[in-house]
Amino acid sequence: MIVPRLIERKRDGGRLEAGEIRELVIAFSEGKVPDYQMAAFLMAVYYRGLERSETNALMDAMLGSGKRLDLSRLSKPRVDKHSTGGVGDKTSLILAPLIASLDVAVPMMSGRGLGYTGGTLDKLESIPGFRTSLSLKEAERQVEEIGCAMIGQTEEIVPADRKLYALRDATATVEAIPLIASSIMSKKISESLTGLVLDIKRGSGSFMPELDQEIALANAMIELGAAHDCPVVALVTAMDRPLGYACGNALEVAESIETLKGAGPPDLAEVTLALGSEMLILAGVAKSKKDACAMMIDAMTSGRALRKFHEIVRAQGGDDSVIDKPNRLPHAPHKAYFLAPGAGVIQRIESREIGYGVIALGGGRRNMEDSIDPSVGFVITAKPGIRVSKGDALAMIHARTEADLKLGESVLEKAIVIGDGKPSPLPLVSHRITSNGIEAL
Amino acid sequence: MIVPRLIERKRDGGRLEAGEIRELVIAFSEGKVPDYQMAAFLMAVYYRGLERSETNALMDAMLGSGKRLDLSRLSKPRVDKHSTGGVGDKTSLILAPLIASLDVAVPMMSGRGLGYTGGTLDKLESIPGFRTSLSLKEAERQVEEIGCAMIGQTEEIVPADRKLYALRDATATVEAIPLIASSIMSKKISESLTGLVLDIKRGSGSFMPELDQEIALANAMIELGAAHDCPVVALVTAMDRPLGYACGNALEVAESIETLKGAGPPDLAEVTLALGSEMLILAGVAKSKKDACAMMIDAMTSGRALRKFHEIVRAQGGDDSVIDKPNRLPHAPHKAYFLAPGAGVIQRIESREIGYGVIALGGGRRNMEDSIDPSVGFVITAKPGIRVSKGDALAMIHARTEADLKLGESVLEKAIVIGDGKPSPLPLVSHRITSNGIEAL
Repeated sequence: MIVPRLIERKRDGGRLEAGEIRELVIAFSEGKVPDYQMAAFLMAVYYRGLERSETNALMDAMLGSGKRLDLSRLSKPRVDKHSTGGVGDKTSLILAPLIASLDVAVPMMSGRGLGYTGGTLDKLESIPGFRTSLSLKEAERQVEEIGCAMIGQTEEIVPADRKLYALRDATATVEAIPLIASSIMSKKISESLTGLVLDIKRGSGSFMPELDQEIALANAMIELGAAHDCPVVALVTAMDRPLGYACGNALEVAESIETLKGAGPPDLAEVTLALGSEMLILAGVAKSKKDACAMMIDAMTSGRALRKFHEIVRAQGGDDSVIDKPNRLPHAPHKAYFLAPGAGVIQRIESREIGYGVIALGGGRRNMEDSIDPSVGFVITAKPGIRVSKGDALAMIHARTEADLKLGESVLEKAIVIGDGKPSPLPLVSHRITSNGIEAL
Repeated sequence: MIVPRLIERKRDGGRLEAGEIRELVIAFSEGKVPDYQMAAFLMAVYYRGLERSETNALMDAMLGSGKRLDLSRLSKPRVDKHSTGGVGDKTSLILAPLIASLDVAVPMMSGRGLGYTGGTLDKLESIPGFRTSLSLKEAERQVEEIGCAMIGQTEEIVPADRKLYALRDATATVEAIPLIASSIMSKKISESLTGLVLDIKRGSGSFMPELDQEIALANAMIELGAAHDCPVVALVTAMDRPLGYACGNALEVAESIETLKGAGPPDLAEVTLALGSEMLILAGVAKSKKDACAMMIDAMTSGRALRKFHEIVRAQGGDDSVIDKPNRLPHAPHKAYFLAPGAGVIQRIESREIGYGVIALGGGRRNMEDSIDPSVGFVITAKPGIRVSKGDALAMIHARTEADLKLGESVLEKAIVIGDGKPSPLPLVSHRITSNGIEAL
């Protein structure tokens, strides 16, 4: 393998053989191909893309670099959900216990906040004592015993992906569809799934605002899944405004608990049920969306879903008393309503601004080393299309200081746009993408 | 400076400020920006190019990383010639003593063989004892004393370029015009030139076979020169066949000596006089091409040019007796004529095949560590357009072993194409490019 020749071929738009990609990635992960050659290769991939066989070989090489979750003793179906990232998106926190309570295993591997978006691990860690860094063995045992584990990427799983991702982050080569797709799917395949549901976020608050880019990403992931007997179904959902009301770690846990009881915000419940239906159908335990919804609503209202959440929190060392007494979650010392500065119709709620606002209040990271305050954030009950009068309460700000309350206010002033027109927010769930193609819903 | 942001901006086709480029290159040369970030940046430059101000800033930063030849005590004009690389191209060996003998300083910094092309340093080192690795101080003194030094790039001159070039070589980012132009010009400007003549090789045996690419390179170098009071004139010359007869290090030195006496192959003499005229005109010692040619022919026939070559060889530790007795140059133990395998007209002589053939005989490097045998090579007296009969001697092969003679024969069988048509080799000197534009000659 002469690495500059491989880079050159990709640079000029040529195709690498599967064996060449494999050799390159393995040598890179073993430190035999230097970072600078891989960086040049990644930038060439940014411009030239990868063909299906190349993307597959890349993912296989990454998978081969580490261990997988061994769930072979488990007879249950195993499904997970992955989101491309949003603001106020706490569906993972609800779906993991909800679906696991319906006799489907959910080996869920999540991430931390990235850019302006929140991360499931950060949210879970606002529960006192909750441990997300389980070993592979611990996670396997927990999934076998209670049907669910909610963990971060361990050292053992796809180390080549971790190394590659760090390099992409430092070299402006993150935003390339085959690289994104193979990175996500290598982690998902290593969870030994029998099915995966993708939540592709769309709109101004998503990482890729263009729908065609999102469809391309979904298709790339569907293809990678198909090559590993892991059928993938993607839903395209709205991220032109935050999902639900709460934005901020502990606030989102509290809202997730409400939703698990069947009392969550309507938009959050709708998206959760849509994603959950796909999970249950992929798992083979529901035949239709109607069946699946009935099962989930029963699990919520009967308390079965909430009991599963208790089990998960206890199993991972967390204080599960917060579930029944959410005021035991970390709470901010300063709270204030945000009042409508004028009358009119809410036109937009800019989720990107809200996400950066949570970070500004201390609830997210500017650098990977930052620690975060789980208590702060916003609870924005207003939604686009609602008519408001001046002085109406639109949101509550949760902050560490009086000064931060002012900061939060200025964030909301910019993010919540009031006007005269009739806004047209995106439909909550607009498209469904499978290996058979895309359908508008 | 947030490096991934700079990479991203270039990746997306944006422009960097001169200060940003400078900071990036300086930090890279000091080891503060890692190779992998620079590699990604270079690949983005490969696709997106650099604007004039960016290329200028890049060259300035490289220049600033090292020392320059200090020739300020010299009142003479100082010119050099640079070639984009060819096969059988020994014009530097002839022009350095020839022009220096006409009271123009020639501080000539050259390279080694690259790919299938020969290098002036390798050729010079076939003269027993010849030292090309002078220190900056030695080179300055020698130029002051005898008007010429023929050296390699020292450790002190543009170290950032050396570091950047090594990285480009390893990451398939060599072939980008602004990077080529700034690399060459940073070295030339550091020679403290008052003028530079470029020999842009054209045709199948050149690095960039497309004429428009070559014109773009010439223009980039002309612009960089203009920003440093170093006027640049480029001639486009033919490299669709080897230049002169000899291809191989010592063989080319012998042919250069013949040419310095006025008895070289006509094509070599023509290209040499064309380039030399531009050098003398840039130096201000000749008013026209006609004057310049008369001066050069006088220097050749009077022995003045050859005496200057004696001085240079002696000054650099070489055995200058080889000039009068070329049989003292290293010579190969095995020689054989290559005979025309059939009758017809010589259609083509593939210089790339010949160049690789010299390497195969041991006269060039496959890897930077290889040592080379200066004695081997080809003397191809046949030229495209000549009618030959079967059995006519077309070339002589100089080899280390009997087996290598066979190898050389198979190289020539492929490289020298005999047919029935009337070939149309490129004109030897076809275009002249200056800051005023391009003119066909």
